[in-house]
This record gives sequence, structure tokens and C-alpha cells, in this order.
Amino acid sequence: MPRRRRRVFELFVLTIALVLGVSVLVGVGRDATPAPAGQRFDGTGRVVVRNAALVVTMDPTLGTGDLGLIENADVVLDGDRIRAVGRGAGRSVAGAKVIDGRGKIVLPGFVDLHTHAWQSLIRGCATDKELNGWLGGCVLPLYGAPVTAQDAYAGARLSTLDAVNTGVTTMTDWSHAFNADFARGNLRALADSGVRFVFSYAANANPATLDEVRRVKREVIDQNPLANLQIGSHPTTENYENLAASEQLARELGVPLNVHLHESRADPATGQMDALRRAGAIRPGLLVDHAIYLTDAELDELAAADVRVAHNPLSNMRLASGVIRLPDMRARNMKVGLGLDGGTNDTNDMFNDMRAAVGLQRATAADPTRYPQPSDALRMATLGGAEALGLDAEIGSLTPGKQADIQIVDPQETNFAPRVDWVSQLVFNAQPANVEWVFVAGVARKRGGQVLGDVDRAITEAQAAADRLRELLGR
Amino acid sequence: MPRRRRRVFELFVLTIALVLGVSVLVGVGRDATPAPAGQRFDGTGRVVVRNAALVVTMDPTLGTGDLGLIENADVVLDGDRIRAVGRGAGRSVAGAKVIDGRGKIVLPGFVDLHTHAWQSLIRGCATDKELNGWLGGCVLPLYGAPVTAQDAYAGARLSTLDAVNTGVTTMTDWSHAFNADFARGNLRALADSGVRFVFSYAANANPATLDEVRRVKREVIDQNPLANLQIGSHPTTENYENLAASEQLARELGVPLNVHLHESRADPATGQMDALRRAGAIRPGLLVDHAIYLTDAELDELAAADVRVAHNPLSNMRLASGVIRLPDMRARNMKVGLGLDGGTNDTNDMFNDMRAAVGLQRATAADPTRYPQPSDALRMATLGGAEALGLDAEIGSLTPGKQADIQIVDPQETNFAPRVDWVSQLVFNAQPANVEWVFVAGVARKRGGQVLGDVDRAITEAQAAADRLRELLGR
Repeated sequence: MPRRRRRVFELFVLTIALVLGVSVLVGVGRDATPAPAGQRFDGTGRVVVRNAALVVTMDPTLGTGDLGLIENADVVLDGDRIRAVGRGAGRSVAGAKVIDGRGKIVLPGFVDLHTHAWQSLIRGCATDKELNGWLGGCVLPLYGAPVTAQDAYAGARLSTLDAVNTGVTTMTDWSHAFNADFARGNLRALADSGVRFVFSYAANANPATLDEVRRVKREVIDQNPLANLQIGSHPTTENYENLAASEQLARELGVPLNVHLHESRADPATGQMDALRRAGAIRPGLLVDHAIYLTDAELDELAAADVRVAHNPLSNMRLASGVIRLPDMRARNMKVGLGLDGGTNDTNDMFNDMRAAVGLQRATAADPTRYPQPSDALRMATLGGAEALGLDAEIGSLTPGKQADIQIVDPQETNFAPRVDWVSQLVFNAQPANVEWVFVAGVARKRGGQVLGDVDRAITEAQAAADRLRELLGR
Repeated sequence: MPRRRRRVFELFVLTIALVLGVSVLVGVGRDATPAPAGQRFDGTGRVVVRNAALVVTMDPTLGTGDLGLIENADVVLDGDRIRAVGRGAGRSVAGAKVIDGRGKIVLPGFVDLHTHAWQSLIRGCATDKELNGWLGGCVLPLYGAPVTAQDAYAGARLSTLDAVNTGVTTMTDWSHAFNADFARGNLRALADSGVRFVFSYAANANPATLDEVRRVKREVIDQNPLANLQIGSHPTTENYENLAASEQLARELGVPLNVHLHESRADPATGQMDALRRAGAIRPGLLVDHAIYLTDAELDELAAADVRVAHNPLSNMRLASGVIRLPDMRARNMKVGLGLDGGTNDTNDMFNDMRAAVGLQRATAADPTRYPQPSDALRMATLGGAEALGLDAEIGSLTPGKQADIQIVDPQETNFAPRVDWVSQLVFNAQPANVEWVFVAGVARKRGGQVLGDVDRAITEAQAAADRLRELLGR
């Protein structure tokens, strides 16, 4: 609907322009919130979000409480950076594009700490299976199959548009990289999206793969200020050779390793922890995904090594994986963020992910004081993810000097109003449709509730690719 | 945003009408889906949803599988009824208003089997508390407080609009009825909404209350074809007198009793089951909400008496209540539906509720074959709820002759496309924003993705009422 209305709106503008010779009338709204007429939010110049009802800075030095809350405040962007945050901070900024923030909530963009962007193509696949059944039905047959750059692009393109829709500004994309061509298409879609990303390239001991990853780092990642690299791997006794080569490559390139760990009940028996130990991979920066079945001793070991965790509650529910020991990780001061886990979970709704992170702990422990509280979930989804990636000097909070990765949420909707406790309501009430603006490095990627980009084309191409994959999967 | 665009659009139509003397151009869209120009969907005449990509009838005699699926089919409404469903069923219908169903999914409207409509006013209240802490902070102080019809109206008005937004066509509203005036305002909002509803009037042993409920049935419920009555009560040893009077009133009026049962771990010790037994309330039609802490013997007893269950997974997660024994209820052939549980849960998203029902069982049992599967959740959210209410002869499936309570979902959105397995995707991918049309008794309540009604006013009045309540609650 929104896109249909946009089409109508474009027609409207054209007609009016023809008839009356004017070309304005952008964003005339019930809130009298002028989405600035004709202005482009392209990361140049200054932008002031004026008089936002609530700014959740995630920086306790900027406002009250752990989340650094400020009411009735301005957020000033300058190019790709946050310049200032605070009451009246935008007053003396000349020549800025202005967004009326009245009644709105500004917060950092979400950091999706774990996803597989291509997997939008297998949404709804094998929904009656746990991890290994699902992998066997929807993923593993694609190793060695003729999947192409075009397939990867189509899936990742749709995922990036949808990530923006739910307020995500940084994606951590563990790419299966079924072949080098596939990885290139995947990466191209991430780059085209304008979303900040960490590309986790699943490597192996094949020298050609290792060289390709080196080339990708040099020629693609290092040339793009929004791009970061990780080496993806899968730690098992059987896959040790590939794991060791991947860890070595990660050290060589100075980037983190990213592995799935003890996601399903069957995983510990495959020697995952031992493989990581042998490879020397349990060290600061290692990102482990899921991390459900861990003993106290294993948690101690990971915490002591400053290993980071991507928690994916919606995926864990869909795949019947289990319930993570979040309070025990918190007690060990581990860095934990939230992931949507793409097609494994299907639901690209970070608000749902936050409330699932809270609710899954509560329902299973029958204890409402259990970690995380709503404010903890908000932190995990933003600064927590940034810390886990080692990017918290650049993103995760609205601290001046950091990258201008922000979202503006409109709580004046039937599912969110009235205002009682907005921090809790962001977790328990909000829906992706409430995200009105998303900026990455100062560039608008969602505006007036519309994801900017070729959505129709992305959907058409994703369907074509999904149909190809379905054939390759023999489903 | 959508409303803003509508405003723009209205301006557009006005301008064009003035300049060119025409007044059409409604719904010109990328899908070439003409939302019929100028036509009102007011429950009169015939409506054909033409060539829907998938119709989930929930009637196995109409299509394939338990859900009665039909591809590329028409759905024909006639006044407040469903007239026909099937391929080409709309071909010979003359003079009908036509909705282009290409690419869309048609399914029965959702039955929200348990909510408290006024509680939109306490969204986000005491989110760090379990049931009793939350009740003590946000609900119980309102007994005896000067809460008004206006307060109840404001809360229920917002809730009904939001219910429509997520595809709900029947609400089961357990009203605290803090005083008769409050109950009247609550009821008026339900009636004004055009949503089908079951008003569960919390009664007590006070003769004035009993008389008021009798009057409400006679003068309000019985006069409104969309209205149904239940008697609400709370079964404990301490509250036995009120429970017994409520049960007696339910029998007198020939309507079901509706009670919260063993929702929190502390509940069994309050004598709930014994109170119900003593009152003779454990009989066919009794609706019990939550029903988490039940022994095998208690489940046997409830199942044998054909007692029905409202499962509220999102509420159970938010309030740290626990995990319901759904598979054990299924094994006993109990009638179970899904509830959103209003402010207790905050999130009015029935798609989220369905996936939580599936995911909570899976994550805790680490078993993906565990009941319910996605198709079971869809059934619970529609026909299952209707059965639990004893309204399945009238609603819950698209069987010709039943009430025209339907929703049309647009899966061509970034969060839902591509098509892989739409039944699973309805549960795991869909969001309220994907609901394009909602009809109750043939009357459109959401159209082109817009909830029809005075949304802005409802939000403003809900905020004013929430502010009053906050004061009464001393928060």
C-alpha cells in the first residue's frame, strides 16, 4: 500500500506541476511534520532533527539513566557524523535541513549481529524442522549446486531493504559463499544497499578461496567506509582443517572470526569447543552465534577470552534450538548483541526480536526480574551489537563524533500510543511500520515510512531466484 | 505515515476534481489493483475478491488439506455473509464491487480470544513485574477509583482500531467493569468499532451489578448482531461468593462464564479449581484464560467438561507467567484459541502471537515436531477461537453462509516475499502492515492498508485518559 500511495503521490506531484506550475507539497501531514520539500538527505550538509520528544542516546554521559535519555532534544547530523545531541543543540546550526521531531523518538539504528542475507530466498522453507533438518532441506544441498551471483544478489537485496524497514543500520552477514561468484553477488547487494555491514565470508582451506577473500578485502571491503570483514567458519572436529585455515586467515587480515556455536543440542558432540581451542580461535573478538548449550566452565572460558555472542531468540524459537543462558553471560560481563538470523527465523522485525529476548527468559524462568529487562534488550540491539563487533567507537550510540546511523520512530500510531513508558513500549509495542526514518552515515534509507529503493524490482527478482533455488533444493 | 499520505491523497483528489472536473483516480497502484473507485464497502450488495492467489478457507471441505486451501480463487460476499468461495466463483456474479485479489492471500479474520480493551491505556506499565506485581501497579488500584465511561471508551476505542490493523475481526473483551459507567463506555467503544465482539462483563454478587448486566444484555447485546455476552469472574476461595453469583447469572442468561485460571505460579494456591468446582462452573462453554499450571488430572477434568482455553503466549512471556501445556491439551482434543491479552502483553500483533505460540513450545522442548505447527497456529487464531466461543457456526472459516469476516493480506512486501510456503510465512513472516483489507460482516474496517476511523482523535483521547489513569495509579 505505501508504495501504491507513493505512486499516486508522484502522479499527484506531476499533475500539480503541470497544471499549476509548482512542484512542492511534499509531506503535508496530519502532524504538520514537514518532510523538507525537495531536500535530499544524501549524507552531505547538516540535518537537524528538531525537538524530538525523546532521544535514546545509549550514552549515559549525554542523558539520564543507562540509556542516556533526553526529552525534547535536537539531534544534529553533519555529513556522515553525529555532530551534537541535546536540548536546543540544533538552534544555532545554520543552513541545515530540518526534520520536525515533535512527538517522535530518536534512537541509534539497530545492529543486526547475525544474519544470512541471501536466505530471504528460503523464507518459509521446512518450517517443521530443527536446525539440522532445516539445513539439510534448505541450505546444504546448495553447496556444489550452480547458485550464482544473481541469486545471492536477489536474496541479499531483498534482505537489506527489509532490514532498513525495521530500523537496522548495520548487518552482520554470515555468508555461506557457496562459490566465489555467489559471494561476489552477495557482497554487491550489501554495498548497493547503503547499509553498514560486516561481511562474514565463510572460508575454507582451499588456497583459491583464501586468495579470493584476500582480494575481496583489498579491493572491496577496504575501499568502502561502510564495509567490514569477518572470516566465517564452522567449528567441528570433522571440519578442523577448514577452521584452522580460516582462523589463520583471520589473524593474517586482522579481522574477527565468526562461527556458529552450540546452537542445537546435537552440536556439542561434534567437538566444536575443542576445535576452536585447537585452532587458537578462542580469543578477543571471536563472535559466536547462538551459544545455547554451554557449561559453566565453557562460559567462564569464553568470557575470560572476551569472546562475543550473537543471540537470535526468534531463530532459536523457530528452529527449536533452545534457550540461551543470558543471565549467566551477563554475570560474566560478556558482550552480547541481537541477531535476526535471516531465513533461519524468517521474521525481520527487530522489535519482535527484542521482546522475544526478554520474553523467552521470563516465560521459561517464570521470573520477571530476570535479565534482560526491556532497556537491556534495547541496549543489546544497538550498542551491545556494536561492542560485540568492536565497532562501538563508531556506532551504537548517538555520541557526537560517531557515525550518523539513526532511526526515528513515530509512536503516534494505534499499536504504540499512548505514552506511558516509551522505553518499554519500544520493546513491547513497536512494529517495523512505526520506523519513519532511517539514516546510515547520514544518508536517508527510509523516509516518511517508505524504504527507499527499488522494492518492486527486488521482490520480483527474489521470487525468480527463490524459484531457481527451490528447484536446486528439489523441493 | 499512511494517514499522512491519505491526507495528501485527499488533497490530490480535491484538486483534480476542481481543476479537471473529475473525481476518480482512487487506488492507482503498482499492482494495477483497482480499489474500486468511489465504492463504499458498507455491507450492502455483493463484493467479489477476484482471483486471489491463495484462499485459506479453514474449511477442509472447500479446498486441500486441513486448512482448505484454494489457489487462484474468488471469494464472494453478499451483504454480511460469505456467498461463495472457489475458482471462478465470482464470474457470474452481476453488479458486484470487485477487489483484485491477484497476488494476495484471503483468510478468515482473526478471533482474539482474550483481551482487555481498556488496557491500551496502560501499555508499557510496570514492565518489570509478573502478573501480580503488574496487577498491583497498573490495574487493582482502579477498583473504587473514579474511572469513567470516557476513560473506558478512550482505551477500548484505540484497542479496537488496533485490532483491526492486525486483522482481528472478533474481540473477546474481558472487561474489569470497575463501575457500571466504565462498563458502558467500554461497551459503547466496542459497538462503535464495527468489530464483532464478545463482552465479558466482570460481575459480582451485588444485586445492582447483576441487574445492570441483565439490562446490558437486553438493551445492548441483544440489539446488536455483532455483540455477544459472557460473564467474567475471578475464581478463588476468597472471591467465591462473587464467582457463584456470576456463574448463576451466566446460567440464567444462557451465556458462557469467562475466568482467568492458573495464569501465574501463585494461582493454584488460591483455590481456583476448587472454587470453580463448588460453583458448578466446570461445564461446556466455560472459557479459561491462560491455564498454564494444570496437572494431568485437572486437564482431564477440564477436557471431559468441554472447557475451552484462551492461550496468550505474548502475555505469558511479558508477565513471566510460564509455558502452557499445549500438546497435552491437543492430545485431549480441547478447544484452544489465541488471545492478545491487551495491555498485559502490549503487542497487538496476531502474527507475532501465532509465532510465539509455536516458538515458545519449540524453544522450551527443543523439538520442532511439537504441537502447534504453523498451520495449527493459524487454525487456533481463526476457527479455533470461534470454536472456543461457540461461534463456529457463524465465523472462523470462509464457509459459504458464514459471516463475511475476512482479511486480505498482501505478501508482496519486503518482509514477506518471495513465495515459498505461504501458510508458514503467514505465521513466521507476516506483520500487521501486510494486512490490506479487513471486513467484518461485509463492512470494510481496513482498506488499502488504512484502518478506517478517527485514528488521530482516538490517539489524542487515549493519551488524555492514560494521563488520568496514571494519576489515579499514583505512578
